[in-house]
Amino acid sequence: MTDHEKYQQLRQIMRSAAKIGAASSLCGWDLETIMPPAAAEVRSEVMAELASVIHERTTSSEVWDLLQELQSGRLSGREAANVRKLFRQIERERKLPSEFVRELSELTAASHHVWVEARKQSNFGIFRPNLERIVALKRHEADLVGYSGSPYDALIDAFEPGMTCARLDEIFGELQAFLQPLVARIAAVPDRAAHDNVRIPMAVADQRRLVADLAAQLGFDPAWGRIGEAAHPFSTRIHPGDLGITTAYNAADALEALYSTIHEVGHALYEAQLPQADWGLPLGEAISMGVHESQSRLWENVIGRSRPFCDRLHRLLAESGLDPALLPDEERLWRGINAVAPSLIRTEADEMTYNLHVILRFEIERDLIEGRLEVRDVPEAWNSRMLTLLGVRVPDDARGCLQDVHWSGGMFGYFPSYALGNLAATQIAAAAEQEIGLAQTVAVGDFARVRNWLQGNVHVQTDAANLDELMVKATGAPLDPACFRRYLEAKSRELFGL
Amino acid sequence: MTDHEKYQQLRQIMRSAAKIGAASSLCGWDLETIMPPAAAEVRSEVMAELASVIHERTTSSEVWDLLQELQSGRLSGREAANVRKLFRQIERERKLPSEFVRELSELTAASHHVWVEARKQSNFGIFRPNLERIVALKRHEADLVGYSGSPYDALIDAFEPGMTCARLDEIFGELQAFLQPLVARIAAVPDRAAHDNVRIPMAVADQRRLVADLAAQLGFDPAWGRIGEAAHPFSTRIHPGDLGITTAYNAADALEALYSTIHEVGHALYEAQLPQADWGLPLGEAISMGVHESQSRLWENVIGRSRPFCDRLHRLLAESGLDPALLPDEERLWRGINAVAPSLIRTEADEMTYNLHVILRFEIERDLIEGRLEVRDVPEAWNSRMLTLLGVRVPDDARGCLQDVHWSGGMFGYFPSYALGNLAATQIAAAAEQEIGLAQTVAVGDFARVRNWLQGNVHVQTDAANLDELMVKATGAPLDPACFRRYLEAKSRELFGL
Repeated sequence: MTDHEKYQQLRQIMRSAAKIGAASSLCGWDLETIMPPAAAEVRSEVMAELASVIHERTTSSEVWDLLQELQSGRLSGREAANVRKLFRQIERERKLPSEFVRELSELTAASHHVWVEARKQSNFGIFRPNLERIVALKRHEADLVGYSGSPYDALIDAFEPGMTCARLDEIFGELQAFLQPLVARIAAVPDRAAHDNVRIPMAVADQRRLVADLAAQLGFDPAWGRIGEAAHPFSTRIHPGDLGITTAYNAADALEALYSTIHEVGHALYEAQLPQADWGLPLGEAISMGVHESQSRLWENVIGRSRPFCDRLHRLLAESGLDPALLPDEERLWRGINAVAPSLIRTEADEMTYNLHVILRFEIERDLIEGRLEVRDVPEAWNSRMLTLLGVRVPDDARGCLQDVHWSGGMFGYFPSYALGNLAATQIAAAAEQEIGLAQTVAVGDFARVRNWLQGNVHVQTDAANLDELMVKATGAPLDPACFRRYLEAKSRELFGL
Repeated sequence: MTDHEKYQQLRQIMRSAAKIGAASSLCGWDLETIMPPAAAEVRSEVMAELASVIHERTTSSEVWDLLQELQSGRLSGREAANVRKLFRQIERERKLPSEFVRELSELTAASHHVWVEARKQSNFGIFRPNLERIVALKRHEADLVGYSGSPYDALIDAFEPGMTCARLDEIFGELQAFLQPLVARIAAVPDRAAHDNVRIPMAVADQRRLVADLAAQLGFDPAWGRIGEAAHPFSTRIHPGDLGITTAYNAADALEALYSTIHEVGHALYEAQLPQADWGLPLGEAISMGVHESQSRLWENVIGRSRPFCDRLHRLLAESGLDPALLPDEERLWRGINAVAPSLIRTEADEMTYNLHVILRFEIERDLIEGRLEVRDVPEAWNSRMLTLLGVRVPDDARGCLQDVHWSGGMFGYFPSYALGNLAATQIAAAAEQEIGLAQTVAVGDFARVRNWLQGNVHVQTDAANLDELMVKATGAPLDPACFRRYLEAKSRELFGL
């Protein structure tokens, strides 16, 4: 076989695995949106079966042999990049024995229900035995994968290739150093009422229409995407040509559904604009979770909470048939959408305080994986850190260390990507401002121009090995927290005159 | 390995294949209900990939060896029945080389679009080259599978185990002999207007509520079932605990959605009440397409078009907020729901004429597969047979030989099951009348009692080898067209005084 033939064979195997993966994505979409809840157990068995087929195919010795032979093969640049990235992924997967994978997957499947119950009763003790087993397995996973610095590095790497504790310590140190004083100064701003949160009550049926309208305006096209409803909004690519986002509706506030929709549309546009010809291969996939989050946050925060966008949203709300008495004026709406206040729940946190929630989780995860914190001490560590970082007292575990789904799913190492995405979003936006005048483009509603710029500079640049390489391609420099600082400083000047 | 261990191993392999099948069912459900239409091509690739995984697993030499060894093994009655039925299925599948299966599957996937276009343009010529290739492949399939009587027997067998052309000739001969004169006598009944079709205009949103309400009353439980919308209504079991039915809405007539819902609920109740422990094995599946159709027709026609049921439906409509001027009185509604008139389209045909549509298709399919009819002569054969059997002139191919999807999908041999289901439904209902007083049970709305009787006497009797064996278990006798004749005769007395 020539190298070309070997590459084509590899490509075909990976494509066939991607097709099985598509079925699994659909199973997940359906599970969260339409499936009768009592079918959850059988559905998880179905998804485990699909996962095992994918695992078999992608970690077969056939794939591994092809990858090894192609390492030194004569390939085009994109082909070589696919081989390089795939080698890295499969090498990691092959280090995990199938018994280990099955044990972890059964444990996390069972732990989900336990976590749900523990959160419902706000009792960490219920979840503790499961979390102890999960932490033990994740520490074992780190050993199996291998690492040079912290064992936690081995886990972060699954979500953010090449990222390490050492680098995150630097980045998060710099973040914390300017976020805490900034949040304190904002808290001291007089006339709080003018900056308070705003809520727009609206019937859910009306919100559904508005959400579909807004998503379409941003470029989420019903010709290749569906909008569903789920308790926890998410975005998924089922397969090329079929993207899904979900929204949760709250009749007391249409802004919740609207902003979660903008966020999910950001994710979906990335998936929709990936190089589809490489579907199944690394260059057909997102570079990292941080890069993914940069796309949702760029749309939700940098664009979505900007004054020109808020003004557009004001018009949309005004034209929706909403009782005018329920709609504040443009300035009040914009200030409300940008309200800042330290709070208990990460997913509801504003742009200024969000990353402090991530830093807390990073520290706890690192300490658990490095063995410096026992699972039984997590609530105390959480609560005391919330007080130090955000000045917030945690009233119960449900609104404290039980609030996130990630640990029950074994997703240690994921949280840092949320913060990295926030940072990357502002750096990418700064580049877009320079190149196409992002703010003005948003002001005139030319979202197609924004999408095109993102496609060319971010979405198709999948040969970047990781977040930093992508940032160099898209912005000319690796990730730089100073961009985020400048963005927040400018925003607090605009909002609070600071 | 003991026989018990071998059986458990076989069971596990088949269960794992069923899980992949569940993902495929969901892909199909989603394709027809929610998926953006442009994704159809990728979706069909995904489904083909899942089908190939299932095929690999179920036709492996491991399965075949286990089946052969277990043929003479020491097994319980149910286990032996599973082995016997599975052996028959897999033996058939193994006779079809994978190249043949792939060729047929690619051809039918491509032919679907061609058929859609041909029907749109009402031009059989567009579809003819595809149909010629499909007929050739189906004739080849019959040769590969083998047969003793007609090659068409080999195709019928895939839907109706053990059924043959010879038996169908008898059954359909008897049917035709009493249907044609009966339909002619009904056509001669005076005061046609009192027997005309009835339409109930209703906003689609109101119909949706009514459909959900009616389905729940019949026993389709939202705890294990979902109701979707699709151009062509269908029912599917995604996996145990997750059943799906779909409905198509027409604002001009709520009865269309209501009766198609009753039909699909009949299918769904069968799937919901199958022995779930045997999921993946033959005893966890429907016995045949005819038995499946008997369940939908029992609910839709025997129960759904009976006077007591129509009276219940009248109350439901009256309480739905419908403008009373749009609702005829009970008797007129019942007569309208039971309107009889020879017509062009099978799926819209009434109880008295429906089977004549099936007889026409049976004859054409048999002649095509036996080589006595050329594909190019199908329109002429169709139109002349429509005139003989139903006295109807076919104005164009769209409303003639292009009306059904089946041929484009290679489903030769399927149509007879529709008629067999109609016959079986009345025979099963007669048994239920004797045992639980079906008509009175329906009159008081005790549908749970009907479901329980069906579950015990039909749904769990999956060790029956075929329709006839099931009929013996459920009614004490093999399929007997005389039951259907008595049912129609009683009904035409009641409706037309004949």
